Amino acid sequence: MMFDHPDNNPVRKLTEDECWQLLERTQHGRLVGVVAGYPDIFPINIAADQRSIVFRTAPGTKLAEVAVNENVLIEADGILSDEAWSVVLRGTAALLQTSGEISEAERLDLQPWVPGPKEQFVRVTPTEVTGRHFAFGPYRDAELGEGSEGG
Amino acid sequence: MMFDHPDNNPVRKLTEDECWQLLERTQHGRLVGVVAGYPDIFPINIAADQRSIVFRTAPGTKLAEVAVNENVLIEADGILSDEAWSVVLRGTAALLQTSGEISEAERLDLQPWVPGPKEQFVRVTPTEVTGRHFAFGPYRDAELGEGSEGG
Repeated sequence: MMFDHPDNNPVRKLTEDECWQLLERTQHGRLVGVVAGYPDIFPINIAADQRSIVFRTAPGTKLAEVAVNENVLIEADGILSDEAWSVVLRGTAALLQTSGEISEAERLDLQPWVPGPKEQFVRVTPTEVTGRHFAFGPYRDAELGEGSEGG
Repeated sequence: MMFDHPDNNPVRKLTEDECWQLLERTQHGRLVGVVAGYPDIFPINIAADQRSIVFRTAPGTKLAEVAVNENVLIEADGILSDEAWSVVLRGTAALLQTSGEISEAERLDLQPWVPGPKEQFVRVTPTEVTGRHFAFGPYRDAELGEGSEGG
């Protein structure tokens, strides 16, 4: 188990530090935004950098439209056989503009899912970072009680 | 490669049938919804059933609040070393109400991420299913040209 569940609750809230520990070793996540009231989601490669998330996009794509948005989420999760985690970062996304910002981001070794010649970097500055760790197996059985189904 | 890219474009749109083929062998996805203008996202276990997606939730949870919503997304993706895919289903989510619907859903062998005693099933009926397949490696290098960075 990556995290203990001392109270035997199958769900454990992660601290902000624990969320960043997970984000720092995760290369893949999803960007969620709302455009004209409709949600949209894109898989992206992410890099955690100075308690923010950086990713690449290209002008004119749908991703770029969602990516410059005051209210976005970045989600990342991981699933193992007997445990899983999910981290959600709420924040504001902005294109990196200055050459200093951009050359810093270039050091992060990020690849876009959709490559293109005119790539840009986007940084999501969080207003809130939350996460949960899920313990499957014995906790689940205990919680569900006798009536539960296997699987 | 799961899918060919005959035109050497690193991104290939998937047909609806191809999207369902992927969803049918995927147990894990994410529910995205909008509540009061703000997006939210939850990891969920999913089952594809009769060209819709079924998952479990429990009353009173945030997931349940988002889950009964006329405008939700279900996203699933997979990443391998040299390829990746992402499928997004837009649709309407509704709680299963009748005992017939519920006993049918119970056969799907679904587990919730957050177990609880009063579980419910939600079915998302799609209005649109889209997906993309990403070929990394040679396609990516060709597309990015000489100026691209490795990684």
